Formats: sequence, C-alpha cells, structure tokens
Amino acid sequence: MTPRDPDWAARIRENFAAQGMMRTLAAEVVALAPGEVTLAAPIRPEVTQHHGYAHAAVAFALGDNAAGFAARSLMAPGAGVLTVEMKINLLAPAAGARLIATGRVERAGRRLTVTRSEVAAEAEDGARVVVALMQGTMMAIDGLG
Amino acid sequence: MTPRDPDWAARIRENFAAQGMMRTLAAEVVALAPGEVTLAAPIRPEVTQHHGYAHAAVAFALGDNAAGFAARSLMAPGAGVLTVEMKINLLAPAAGARLIATGRVERAGRRLTVTRSEVAAEAEDGARVVVALMQGTMMAIDGLG
Amino acid sequence: MTPRDPDWAARIRENFAAQGMMRTLAAEVVALAPGEVTLAAPIRPEVTQHHGYAHAAVAFALGDNAAGFAARSLMAPGAGVLTVEMKINLLAPAAGARLIATGRVERAGRRLTVTRSEVAAEAEDGARVVVALMQGTMMAIDGLG
Amino acid sequence: MTPRDPDWAARIRENFAAQGMMRTLAAEVVALAPGEVTLAAPIRPEVTQHHGYAHAAVAFALGDNAAGFAARSLMAPGAGVLTVEMKINLLAPAAGARLIATGRVERAGRRLTVTRSEVAAEAEDGARVVVALMQGTMMAIDGLG
Repeated sequence: MTPRDPDWAARIRENFAAQGMMRTLAAEVVALAPGEVTLAAPIRPEVTQHHGYAHAAVAFALGDNAAGFAARSLMAPGAGVLTVEMKINLLAPAAGARLIATGRVERAGRRLTVTRSEVAAEAEDGARVVVALMQGTMMAIDGLG
Repeated sequence: MTPRDPDWAARIRENFAAQGMMRTLAAEVVALAPGEVTLAAPIRPEVTQHHGYAHAAVAFALGDNAAGFAARSLMAPGAGVLTVEMKINLLAPAAGARLIATGRVERAGRRLTVTRSEVAAEAEDGARVVVALMQGTMMAIDGLG
Repeated sequence: MTPRDPDWAARIRENFAAQGMMRTLAAEVVALAPGEVTLAAPIRPEVTQHHGYAHAAVAFALGDNAAGFAARSLMAPGAGVLTVEMKINLLAPAAGARLIATGRVERAGRRLTVTRSEVAAEAEDGARVVVALMQGTMMAIDGLG
Repeated sequence: MTPRDPDWAARIRENFAAQGMMRTLAAEVVALAPGEVTLAAPIRPEVTQHHGYAHAAVAFALGDNAAGFAARSLMAPGAGVLTVEMKINLLAPAAGARLIATGRVERAGRRLTVTRSEVAAEAEDGARVVVALMQGTMMAIDGLG
C-alpha cells in the first residue's frame, strides 16, 4: 500500500495530538505504517467500568482511531477522515497494564475504506490477550484534513 | 417490561457510580425505567477528536452503558451485565453542549438481550440532533452483579 | 421525507423485478412509501436451515433489500444504490408462514444513507413475532440506477 | 484448536445437507478443519441483484454458514449452533463464476464464539477478489445438535 500524501505520517501525528480524548486517555502512537497504525493507552482507574476492567469505550476509542489513521495514511493530501460505522466484538475482560490497538486497511476505495482492528490487553510482563475485534468503514472528506 | 430485581434501579446507580470512565466523562443518569435508560455527558475539550467535535468514543460510552443498564434493569437479582458486541453508525458531527443517549431493550432473553441506542447532541438552547444509532447484544452473568 | 425522483416507485419495482434472488425467494413488494419499504417472502423448504426454520439469509435478503429500496426512494433520479454494510441481530427462530421485512431511512445524506430494518415471522393466523433487527449503510451511485 | 466432538465433521456435513437454503444456492463444502470451514456456491441468474451481480444475501448465507460450522467444529457433542448476530461489509461487486467463503473461529467461549469470515468472488480462471468481510457471534445450544 503506497501513500499518496507525502506528509501522511506528520498529518496523523498532528491529528492525534489535537484530540482531547487521546490526551484524556493518556494514549500514545506506538507505530505508523501505510495502512496500519498502532496506538496504546494505560488501564487506569479513570477509565474503568464497574468491575474494574477498562471500559469498552477505551478499546473502542483506540481501535476506532487506529483504523481511522490507517485509512488516512492512504488518502490524498488534504483529506480528512470520518468514521461511518464501527462494530466491536468484546472477547475478554480488558485487564492488565495497557491496551494496544492495531488498525489495518482491508480495502481502500476512492471515498470509503474498510478497516479491521484488533485490541489486546497487555500485562506488566508483556503478555497479551486479545480483548476486542472491530470492523468498520471510514470516509474521506476532501478539504477536511 | 417488568423488572425481576426489586433493587434494579439502586443496582444500576451503584454500577454507574463505580465506573471511573463515567466520572472522567462527567456523565450523569438522566432517566431510569425498566428496559430504558438515558445518560448524558457534556461536550468538553477533554473529549474531542481533532475537528473539535466529541469523539465517537463518547457517544459509544454513553450508548453502550445506557443499553447495558437497560438490559440490567430486566435481569434477575445478582446478575451482572457484559457487552457482547455493539455496532454504531455515526449520523452527524457531535457538536453542542452535551450528548444524551437512550438505550432500550428490544428483546430480553434468559441470557442474551438485544438493545438499540440513540445518541443525540443537544445545543445550549435544548435543540437536539441525532448523531449516532447503535445496536448490540448484552449478556447476563450470574453472580457478577 | 420528500422523494426527489418522481419515478422512484416505478424504479424500485423495476429493480425488484430484475433481481433473480427475489424470484428465487418468491418475494413480493408489500408496501412502498418514501423512506419506508416492506417486502415479504414465504417460509418454504427451499430456504430452511437445518432446524427447519428459515435461514438467516432470507431475513437478511429481505431486510437488506427493504432498506436499500427505502434509501433509493429518497435519492436523485438516475441514482443506483449499493449496500455498504449491514448488521443483523437474530432475536427468535424464523418459523411460520412468511417473513415480512420493513426497511426505514434513519438519515439520508448526499451520498450515504443510514437505515434500520425489522423482520417479523408471520403465522398462518397473521400473528407476528420480530425475528431480526438490522442496521446498515447504503450508498448512492450516480448513473447506476 | 482441538475438537471436543469426535464426530464434528460428520455432524457439520449432516447439517449442511439438511439445509434447503444451501441446496437452493447449489452450495458445496470445500474444506473442513477444526475452527475453519470453507463453502462455495456458483453465481447464477437465480441469485442476482438488479445489476447482475450475486446478491449480498449469497455472500451472507455462505459466510454465515461457514462461520457457524467453524464454531460448531469446536463445540461439545450434541451442541447446536445459532447465529446471534452478524455484520457484513461489502468491498466489491460479486462478479464471476462462484463465491467462496471461509469462516474462522477467533475466540471459542463456553457458550459464545466470535467468528470472522472472508468471502471472495472467483473468476473462471481461478482469480479471486475479496467481496465481503464478516464478523459475528455464534451461540452453542445444548441438545440442539
């Protein structure tokens, strides 16, 4: 997958930095590649549900953003990206030190991009368990980027 | 829809209060009825995406919780509720003063409950625009409540 | 919801008649209104799964088509409609005389339309049970209609 | 992934043979392995939508069945399998000689199994294009198998 925007990586880092939600989650960019982006965030008391695990919305936030940025990495210069829809299946409780989400482009169309994301919970010792699988649609918006 | 747990409302308020994520979002319970729950949270800089709207994860968090609590309201005493899966379609940018999510039970089974949620953005003057529709599955877990 | 294509109903009936799959399912158009379409098909041995109920694909076929036609009813002349994605939750076994699916437009955008569908199984005596709920996205394709 | 039912393959073939819908689609079992099942069906005029491509319901029928059988392959003896929910993203028109769907188990739980399916359109010369991605949930029902 070849990027059409030479500044794609800088643009994604700018967008990431401009998201209040990512700061609130203390999220970070782990890896950027054309068509594949990995983000992570710590599992802290501020983001739990009532059983003490990370709320599903954290997995959603990371997996949705990773997918959106993966889609953006292959779009034309100046394009913005919006989530059209996203489906998440939760496989296991999100327990551990942090959540790591990788979003990948499955098909990049002119306007719509189909993505899949995988979210894992990582323990202090680095062991990972997949906690969520996502499948969604991203839309390119000209002049919004 | 008749609740089987006489303490269903107290239980939901307890669960809501125990969620770090809801506090982080400054969310509140707007209405509780058997099979239908409404939650809300302000749109603040802490929860934005990079265009300044509320991040899709806020709509997801509220709509998922509203649906889960709506499902819990019809479950047996002692039951906990987990999200099996959730699909969200985003209809419009989440701009305004706050997001309001209503989750409803569409079918309550012994173990699985199917829900639908609607999330609206409310302006300062009270005008509302639907920004997200969700459809998902909740599971009852005995002894987890 | 006001149609932009004066021939919208004729166009939908043409499309319906041109679908081999609808003939194979012995499906029929029950009702056409702007933004809302109802289709039905008999539950016959030709469409069963291995427990003797109608296969989920029948509910999917009717609900997807009803949603697509509902979206088409509000599109510009000459537009074709494609399903971008569709989610189906199955609520009960599809037993009875026929399946009836109603698709509704939830939000009609310039290019993308969000729909919801409800599929019911109808007994010989007319009693209905909702067997599936669907939520999806339709795309307008200029010049494809 | 180790099957718990020594007769898992025979049971799946029986279920497949008992589905009127699979006969109507002229579908066949291409491959059976624990946790992964591949089915195929020809693209014929009987299953088209109005642009002449295979209707999305054909991809759905094959991908849903492949996923359900993949889930069944890891379940206990006597278990039946029901689709709880299924999401399908359509990536390209289903044109060609036949559709081939592979369903895989992503996580097998005691009661719920999460699956992903990929559906490709195959041309006469064997060239394949992915036309649909699916992600869903299957439920084991004791004594239904």
